[in-house]
Amino acid sequence: MEVLHMFGSEEQKKMWLEPLLRGEMRSCFCMTEPDVASSDATNMACSLHREEDQFIINGKKWWSSGELRPSLCLYLYESPNVTPHARHSMILVPMDTAGVKLIRPLTVFGQDDAIHGGHFEVHFENVRVPASNILLGEGRGFEIAQGRLGPGRLHHCMRAVGLAEMALELLCRRAASREAFGKKLYQHEVVAHWIAECRLTIEQTRLLILGAAHVLDTLGSRTARKQIALIKVAAARMACKVVDCAIQVFGGAGVSGDFPLAHMYSYARTLRIADGPDEVHLSTIARLELRDQLAKL
Amino acid sequence: MEVLHMFGSEEQKKMWLEPLLRGEMRSCFCMTEPDVASSDATNMACSLHREEDQFIINGKKWWSSGELRPSLCLYLYESPNVTPHARHSMILVPMDTAGVKLIRPLTVFGQDDAIHGGHFEVHFENVRVPASNILLGEGRGFEIAQGRLGPGRLHHCMRAVGLAEMALELLCRRAASREAFGKKLYQHEVVAHWIAECRLTIEQTRLLILGAAHVLDTLGSRTARKQIALIKVAAARMACKVVDCAIQVFGGAGVSGDFPLAHMYSYARTLRIADGPDEVHLSTIARLELRDQLAKL
Amino acid sequence: MEVLHMFGSEEQKKMWLEPLLRGEMRSCFCMTEPDVASSDATNMACSLHREEDQFIINGKKWWSSGELRPSLCLYLYESPNVTPHARHSMILVPMDTAGVKLIRPLTVFGQDDAIHGGHFEVHFENVRVPASNILLGEGRGFEIAQGRLGPGRLHHCMRAVGLAEMALELLCRRAASREAFGKKLYQHEVVAHWIAECRLTIEQTRLLILGAAHVLDTLGSRTARKQIALIKVAAARMACKVVDCAIQVFGGAGVSGDFPLAHMYSYARTLRIADGPDEVHLSTIARLELRDQLAKL
Amino acid sequence: MEVLHMFGSEEQKKMWLEPLLRGEMRSCFCMTEPDVASSDATNMACSLHREEDQFIINGKKWWSSGELRPSLCLYLYESPNVTPHARHSMILVPMDTAGVKLIRPLTVFGQDDAIHGGHFEVHFENVRVPASNILLGEGRGFEIAQGRLGPGRLHHCMRAVGLAEMALELLCRRAASREAFGKKLYQHEVVAHWIAECRLTIEQTRLLILGAAHVLDTLGSRTARKQIALIKVAAARMACKVVDCAIQVFGGAGVSGDFPLAHMYSYARTLRIADGPDEVHLSTIARLELRDQLAKL
Repeated sequence: MEVLHMFGSEEQKKMWLEPLLRGEMRSCFCMTEPDVASSDATNMACSLHREEDQFIINGKKWWSSGELRPSLCLYLYESPNVTPHARHSMILVPMDTAGVKLIRPLTVFGQDDAIHGGHFEVHFENVRVPASNILLGEGRGFEIAQGRLGPGRLHHCMRAVGLAEMALELLCRRAASREAFGKKLYQHEVVAHWIAECRLTIEQTRLLILGAAHVLDTLGSRTARKQIALIKVAAARMACKVVDCAIQVFGGAGVSGDFPLAHMYSYARTLRIADGPDEVHLSTIARLELRDQLAKL
Repeated sequence: MEVLHMFGSEEQKKMWLEPLLRGEMRSCFCMTEPDVASSDATNMACSLHREEDQFIINGKKWWSSGELRPSLCLYLYESPNVTPHARHSMILVPMDTAGVKLIRPLTVFGQDDAIHGGHFEVHFENVRVPASNILLGEGRGFEIAQGRLGPGRLHHCMRAVGLAEMALELLCRRAASREAFGKKLYQHEVVAHWIAECRLTIEQTRLLILGAAHVLDTLGSRTARKQIALIKVAAARMACKVVDCAIQVFGGAGVSGDFPLAHMYSYARTLRIADGPDEVHLSTIARLELRDQLAKL
Repeated sequence: MEVLHMFGSEEQKKMWLEPLLRGEMRSCFCMTEPDVASSDATNMACSLHREEDQFIINGKKWWSSGELRPSLCLYLYESPNVTPHARHSMILVPMDTAGVKLIRPLTVFGQDDAIHGGHFEVHFENVRVPASNILLGEGRGFEIAQGRLGPGRLHHCMRAVGLAEMALELLCRRAASREAFGKKLYQHEVVAHWIAECRLTIEQTRLLILGAAHVLDTLGSRTARKQIALIKVAAARMACKVVDCAIQVFGGAGVSGDFPLAHMYSYARTLRIADGPDEVHLSTIARLELRDQLAKL
Repeated sequence: MEVLHMFGSEEQKKMWLEPLLRGEMRSCFCMTEPDVASSDATNMACSLHREEDQFIINGKKWWSSGELRPSLCLYLYESPNVTPHARHSMILVPMDTAGVKLIRPLTVFGQDDAIHGGHFEVHFENVRVPASNILLGEGRGFEIAQGRLGPGRLHHCMRAVGLAEMALELLCRRAASREAFGKKLYQHEVVAHWIAECRLTIEQTRLLILGAAHVLDTLGSRTARKQIALIKVAAARMACKVVDCAIQVFGGAGVSGDFPLAHMYSYARTLRIADGPDEVHLSTIARLELRDQLAKL
């Protein structure tokens, strides 16, 4: 499994990977920063300085998602004075290290996700960790991230399809159980066409994801970049649309806490931002498409 | 003021209207019901039976918005055995009457609005009120509602314009203060075009609302029906679009509780449902437009 | 090949099918009628009466596409006094039969397609053909049409993908060869995102079509109905969108006759109407989706 | 009238303006060039050199709209070696001057508009005109264009509203005269909602145009720039949408030459390109909006 390779040394495997796989330890990933537009990874302001055999970490991170109380974080930082591709590094930080401050849980559309893990703001003030905690080696953070982001996005997209299927099922059942103006809701042509549009967008996205997964499996992360960017945009948009239709069919109940739709919308809407906003992915697709089209000339 | 006419008798004015105007009493309006599609007012299932000089009320209402603890509710119910236009009545119910149960506050996209008033589910179990609490008289509920809904919707729409202006202002400031990929966010052409699209939809909606207000003022509620339906659809849609753009520019901060955008989205999205879903208004517009077009023949 | 079965008798095969396959004869299909909404096949007004061993045909058809001068038409008509599924029949009519009048070529967005076949209005005035010209037998027109429409729509959709690929290629080349405001058109972020959106919609539609073809091949026309309806809607919409983006990038040249885009738009836009308008297919999808969803209960 | 000021000298007024006003002469405007992206006016490649008291003109122009055989053209050109705001000039060229070649009429979506004026490609090969034909003076072309474009765009937008009103009227009549699946087309909820959406977009655009006209009348071209850009985008988009809905309701008849809809679409779609494509106007709106928003800080 590709993920295991991040833990380069035998010591790291023993100390961190094995407890993680045994479920004795939880981890979170600290990448996004509150003070800069993190859609551009070169914006990162968190710093890390070496002092003999230790690294000293300073900075603020947020949207660090994971278990309520992670024992370990993967901390991504940037060294500005290095060539672009070697700027980012990842280092392991036990959460009980002095100077690591779990500031607060963040809400998403007012909903406190803290109960099942949540998203946190975490500050690092002169946090010291052994130099051996670095993953693979200094400057290899970008490489690790690139290798993991494709599969990670694929999972996000698959979850979005499952979520949309559930929303459409709820929509259909509600439309079949309630009446307005003398007929079932689904007998209203406009509602019927929403059902059709939802099925259309789900099917198109499901097939696109299956296609991307096939390219990822057979040709690898690098070749699958266009497909991964395509599904990231398509899946988030699709989930937002389907859940929005379902909410409209449910009326007031749709935005309430009595049904999962309002919560599903929070997840779907956030997906248009998380792991790179739609716009960054659209720019990636355009660049790769132009490269392919102009290569034909 | 048209609203005063609802309180038909001198006694009602003294007992209810005056304390309300003095701010000593708070009211809420109980119309939507959890168990039926309330977009169709003829679906209402709440019942009211006369027994000598009292009315006995039974039923469930929700999305009854108002102060945390209203002292009075305006209760709308239906008498099925009467001619359609005389079916609905409105009656005043002091909230401390035996059998009135404030069940729970409702959340909107997970946000508990209870602090500043909130939306409640209220049950009525054999609630008895004096017959003299009826407003204007039995069967005049539809008439009262029609007279008040136009101006009420106008206010909703005006608030939506104000909310959208605030969201656009936040969007512009954020776009001018953050950088990604070597330039300010607003220098990204796609973000710049969002700003243009937001201004376009706000201006179009503002003018449509001003036009509707003019028709309402000069020609009355009945003539303004098409205009009111038009603004209801346009304003809710406009507010959703502008807030959504702002959220995207803010990224993670946009869906968090650190800025008002996530809360604004809840309001904007709910507006597409509250006071009649978009689809009911679109059907009204179509009916009136066809009447006008075919009258030309 | 399924199509051959339409010609039920040996005589029909010898007289019509063989010359058609040898390219000595051309055919057109007369279904759509100018005087009724033909999206609903039960609206058809063309009549056919039997008189001994002949059929007498009367009626008007249009959008009968084919070679400039077809030698043969497949004429679909309805017998109102029969059970619904047995109402439609198809009959072969040699175009030189007395009473067959090729009225005029029709234009599509002003373009006269007559040179390469075109679409015609054809009138039938007391046209007499031998009873043996009926295909498969009276009342089997619906059955023939159903068997052929799936594969026919699949071909339309495949052509739409090819057309869209060509439009996107033209778009990319133009965007790479022209400059405005100091940079290549494709360096304008908005144009770049159009390229990404075009690739996205093409990929999603291509995969949906491949999926539908697989279901058609392996499970047959009847099972593939939902998939066929989905691709018909998706492909027409996709082609319109891609060609529209390309036109916008080309500016005035895009709507002119100097590039194929204006003509491609005519084809793409017509596809939203031809072979059943989008709305009829969306209603079909909704019906089948609801059937599937409610079957789970 | 502002337009008269273009003809600066008494001689120009006598020779050109008066015959134009008497209808004895027709004019066309030569601005767009086939070989460059003309949405950016600084791209213009046509040249003009002074030789004593004459100007020598060379270059290609197209989309020069006007009467079938204009007697006069207003020729816009650029002098690259001058400060940006003084680069453009306009000069009067009688169409019968040696070297002026009316190359061909251009088609719009395959439709030859030549009968009622049309759009032409015109080439200028060593065309010599007296220096006194210059309008207002060298380098004042931009100034003339700016003064005239606002009112010109307003007229385009007003025509778009008229066109859309006609399309909606045709749509409603067709929807009231045809049946499918057992009811009138307008009784299909989806068609009814199109009618409502068309009315909504027409009303919003009409009011926006009236507002822009008011600003133009009372505060002048310069202040009205944002409003003019807003209506240019809104009107073209609105007209495309309404005509597209009407075409869909008409089915095959909608794209044919039997009704004016296909021709109306050509006009509406071209409006998204002519006189500056949507994207240039959206960028203008964004720039002005940001200026206004940031001025509040």
